[in-house]
Amino acid sequence: MVTEKQMRTPDEGRRRVVVENVRPQIDGGRFPVKRTIGESVEVQADAFVDGHDRIRCLLLYRPKGREEWDEVPMTHDGNDRWRGEFPVGALGRFEYTVIAWVDRFLTWRHDFARRRERPDLESALAAGAALVLRGAEEAAGPQRQELRDFAGRLVDARRPLDERCALGLSERPLDLMPQRQDRALATSDALRLEVVVEPERARFSTWYELFPRSTYESAGGHGTFKQVERQLSYIAQMGFDVVYLPPIHPIGRTNRKGANNALVADDGDPGSPWAIGASEGGHVAIHPSLGTIDDFHSLLASVKKRGMELALDIAFQCSPDHPYVREHPEWFRHRPDGSIQYAENPPKKYEDIYPFDFETSDWQALWQELADVVEFWIDQGVKIFRVDNPHTKPFVFWEWLINGIKERHPEVIFLSEAFTRPKVMHRLAKLGFTQSYTYFTWRNTKAELTDYVTELCATESNQYFRPNFWPNTPDILHEYLQFGGRPAFMSRLVLAATMAANYGVYGPPFELLEATPREPGSEEYLNSEKYQIRDWGLARSGNLKDFIARVNRIRHENAALQFDRSVSFHPVDNEELICYSKTTEDLRNIIVTVVNLDPHHVQSGFVELPIDAWEIRDDQPYQVHDLLSDARYLWHGRRNYVEFDPNVAPAHILRLRRRVGREHDFDYFM
Amino acid sequence: MVTEKQMRTPDEGRRRVVVENVRPQIDGGRFPVKRTIGESVEVQADAFVDGHDRIRCLLLYRPKGREEWDEVPMTHDGNDRWRGEFPVGALGRFEYTVIAWVDRFLTWRHDFARRRERPDLESALAAGAALVLRGAEEAAGPQRQELRDFAGRLVDARRPLDERCALGLSERPLDLMPQRQDRALATSDALRLEVVVEPERARFSTWYELFPRSTYESAGGHGTFKQVERQLSYIAQMGFDVVYLPPIHPIGRTNRKGANNALVADDGDPGSPWAIGASEGGHVAIHPSLGTIDDFHSLLASVKKRGMELALDIAFQCSPDHPYVREHPEWFRHRPDGSIQYAENPPKKYEDIYPFDFETSDWQALWQELADVVEFWIDQGVKIFRVDNPHTKPFVFWEWLINGIKERHPEVIFLSEAFTRPKVMHRLAKLGFTQSYTYFTWRNTKAELTDYVTELCATESNQYFRPNFWPNTPDILHEYLQFGGRPAFMSRLVLAATMAANYGVYGPPFELLEATPREPGSEEYLNSEKYQIRDWGLARSGNLKDFIARVNRIRHENAALQFDRSVSFHPVDNEELICYSKTTEDLRNIIVTVVNLDPHHVQSGFVELPIDAWEIRDDQPYQVHDLLSDARYLWHGRRNYVEFDPNVAPAHILRLRRRVGREHDFDYFM
Repeated sequence: MVTEKQMRTPDEGRRRVVVENVRPQIDGGRFPVKRTIGESVEVQADAFVDGHDRIRCLLLYRPKGREEWDEVPMTHDGNDRWRGEFPVGALGRFEYTVIAWVDRFLTWRHDFARRRERPDLESALAAGAALVLRGAEEAAGPQRQELRDFAGRLVDARRPLDERCALGLSERPLDLMPQRQDRALATSDALRLEVVVEPERARFSTWYELFPRSTYESAGGHGTFKQVERQLSYIAQMGFDVVYLPPIHPIGRTNRKGANNALVADDGDPGSPWAIGASEGGHVAIHPSLGTIDDFHSLLASVKKRGMELALDIAFQCSPDHPYVREHPEWFRHRPDGSIQYAENPPKKYEDIYPFDFETSDWQALWQELADVVEFWIDQGVKIFRVDNPHTKPFVFWEWLINGIKERHPEVIFLSEAFTRPKVMHRLAKLGFTQSYTYFTWRNTKAELTDYVTELCATESNQYFRPNFWPNTPDILHEYLQFGGRPAFMSRLVLAATMAANYGVYGPPFELLEATPREPGSEEYLNSEKYQIRDWGLARSGNLKDFIARVNRIRHENAALQFDRSVSFHPVDNEELICYSKTTEDLRNIIVTVVNLDPHHVQSGFVELPIDAWEIRDDQPYQVHDLLSDARYLWHGRRNYVEFDPNVAPAHILRLRRRVGREHDFDYFM
Repeated sequence: MVTEKQMRTPDEGRRRVVVENVRPQIDGGRFPVKRTIGESVEVQADAFVDGHDRIRCLLLYRPKGREEWDEVPMTHDGNDRWRGEFPVGALGRFEYTVIAWVDRFLTWRHDFARRRERPDLESALAAGAALVLRGAEEAAGPQRQELRDFAGRLVDARRPLDERCALGLSERPLDLMPQRQDRALATSDALRLEVVVEPERARFSTWYELFPRSTYESAGGHGTFKQVERQLSYIAQMGFDVVYLPPIHPIGRTNRKGANNALVADDGDPGSPWAIGASEGGHVAIHPSLGTIDDFHSLLASVKKRGMELALDIAFQCSPDHPYVREHPEWFRHRPDGSIQYAENPPKKYEDIYPFDFETSDWQALWQELADVVEFWIDQGVKIFRVDNPHTKPFVFWEWLINGIKERHPEVIFLSEAFTRPKVMHRLAKLGFTQSYTYFTWRNTKAELTDYVTELCATESNQYFRPNFWPNTPDILHEYLQFGGRPAFMSRLVLAATMAANYGVYGPPFELLEATPREPGSEEYLNSEKYQIRDWGLARSGNLKDFIARVNRIRHENAALQFDRSVSFHPVDNEELICYSKTTEDLRNIIVTVVNLDPHHVQSGFVELPIDAWEIRDDQPYQVHDLLSDARYLWHGRRNYVEFDPNVAPAHILRLRRRVGREHDFDYFM
């Protein structure tokens, strides 16, 4: 019985354990998951072996590039699923994987515990003693001797069988036996998964966008970096920690747009800051009216001194006057008549902007040049970039750019302004963008908000997609704000600030309740700052700044609001009221937010909270402390009543406090 | 502005299209999906590009090992998801992948359709003409000339602009333009996914297990292959197409088990067929009492002549008398006292069986020997193997064995008898087992059956896990059969036969309604054939054979029952009644099964069918034809009444027939 065609066996056929389905994992390891410094990564894997043997399972991790792994034991969680966790205490990339192997001593112990008959037990004790002696060989010092003694006692016929059986099942040898024994035949998962570790602000940030040319002392003139510097205390007092400026570069003159996007500009029109480049320079130059590079450095230093960061705009496109157009015509697409193709998405046209042609045969030089632009601003001290329309440049370019930059500067943060189709947005997040704009601006009803936030925060995409919620942007004045008045601005602010750990507003229009569209049905602002300089008059009455400051202080004081993973929605018997919570893992911080989505009418209802999940008994009163109004209510059980008059307060941000004691008729809560 | 640390660019940065999330895909392509010959593979992928360009997306496939790909265009299904399908017309493995690229002409056409202004249109027509001329260069013969003429007309200033615009948007150039143009910059998904194509019987089979030593003419003696051969017409008449025999090899004498698993055998006890090997030989020998290898060949030929296949048992274990024990003691595990360790799962012991030690240093020779055993029986003409306890041998061994065997013999089918934990069963299915035993035998209530069948058939595991449902086996006489009597046997048969395209029974105990356990609370048969020879007396009254024949004929005549993908459960307002359907994709065959799970009482209720999904209007009567009783009912709308007396018929297998016409007061249905 000889087969002619012998089948080639693998190099090692005795690695019997299977490791599979390791999570978190994005696209089979093609992309890293994301964490911020100080967090940890909980890893799960299926691990099992044929037959009845017992296995050990380890989580291995290391900073990328290091040879040696650190190790964490994983624990069995039922149904062949194992769990372990490792900390990420440094910026950059870590690798992780899972290995498992059959542990002979654990297997022996498991079998031994189920034996009943004397001859079996004697035979099993002998086998156990042999394993312990083998373990002693790998142990050192006193442990080795203790293991040898232990083996001797297992087979010492002078001792009663009962005593030796109890010894075999005692805990001591589990502690003494070398835990890494038998590891030569370990199975390692084929995937080396990665996590990219970013600064805390990647996860928890509060953005304020402003056009520096409109800074408040500039009535009739052109704002400057110096004026922005003076405005910083106003921004800081509201509790923002990222100050984001639209492009600060020279603006083209050819085909410059006029006020309200007029095709022809008037003489004094400043043009769109996104039409980058003029005779004064391009992406590494500063618009002369804003100031000098020294002024920029001074502004940057002031921002940082206040514990904030400055974010610049990366808009990889050129005005017709950009030096690149003259120096590198091959970087642009030409029409049959030889002219350069301006940006368009028919029927929309952007005559003042030339997009790069990323299919140019000179693409390598183009990529390098654009990377140099980013490096230039990093060299100036900029750590955060908001990237304009990344979805109109190749994914492969961004992946190269961001990974290359972050390899040298792992602290840098990129926000993707991709208002486009879901899969495009997700790909940009996967390939490396730190944070992403979202559809939040257009999600206004309870059902829309519930579905969308659940999709973002409670699915596996929370491993790589960090939403940044904006109630408004220079491009989007939603009709909810146009018609809802002050209550609408307040409720949208609360929603953004409590649903997403990252959020931002475009000010001063936001805090000044600017609500007039260019024309009815438009989402464009009338007299948009994109095309003209505005004098905002920050001192005018009705400024929401104190409310914003309060909301941002609540975010800073409550860790639950600084993460997105725990968000969970709770029933309210009124479609105009939305209720959701965020909690820390240890449940020491439980924040329940209830918002009235109707900016016009008083609304009330019963909210239903999962108090059992929060370890509050049905018969145990608890305090809800409204951090917005500072009012405190004593609630009982799952269902409790809320009522909102939009003209007074459109929301509660409730901190749940459990009763920890009661004395002299007073309840103590924490 | 020069960066010292230039970042290395990729070799080609202009492959702008992203292809991701290709399905079906098992564990990132680690395992193949499964199909049977003549089926097709529907492939989906996300494909998209930055910006507004239009893409083409192709599905590529080829028999594994061939250089060239065949191609199928994929169509856009919304939300950047693309779909395509390829046929698998040969046994063995196929590879598939997805590629996509930007199509300049499609992009031009899409933009052009949205242009409105004359200068734009003229410029765009010129650009379009240039693309068409470029296409002409790649076209041949009359197509080339037609494209040239077409380009000329687009820019022919003598023609009215309207006419040229209509020309630009006409369908003709889409047909003429080379569809593979611009493909140089195509993106190909990194994964080469695979599908393994197996014979139809891998998907649709009807098994009958019997112990050849108990064949019916053998009262007091030992059945033979010749007697099995005579019994084939009885089996074939019931409609089975796989005849499965437990091990047919010599049986060990050392520690042989007696009747009802007694530790000590009496003189005449034949022993368990799974205690393989004696002085007469091992895994490639035939038990002398069954006959000779010629008798085996004769039986095999008779089985095939009737359109059936013979399935043998692969039980890789040895009796203490197996020649391997003497020739290869190193293939077994030894205790400290030098004796060989018998099989045990404390407190259970199998003293008559030695398991192989797959961690032996001689594992390569062991693997090769076991592969040779399989090859031997394939050489004899056996195409189907039922593998005993595969979960107690290494996964890596099975993957090597099955893939190696199927590379040479792609027609071979392996059924996994792994009654164990879910992830272990699924791994065995993924690594190559054609079919798998399941938990069906222990799923008896409506909720249990619904959950389990939905999990098996309606999740992604249907790409690799083919369930084989058994109402009984020599190891499992479920208490539902012990107490339910004839109605229980009938309903379990109908459930197995209509829920799973692969099912089997262990006969004659099944059709003879054998229901006595070894002791109360046991799932073992009293006087089990595993340990003794039984004289069944097939002629005794009450034999279910006619009912079984009817059910199996229904399976053969209704394609819907030959696939598992379409299974779907429907509401019935009675927990004792279960209702589900299977349909062919074209809806020409719709089978609704309703089963009374209560073997003791009359039960009735209203079933609710998704007739709209089956293209039946609410006001359109339809016929349900009970293929079991041949009764026909006219039903209207979604809800209809059913009633079952278990002593008459515990189930309907209803074929839905839609009314196709009405004449002279007669309805015509098909």
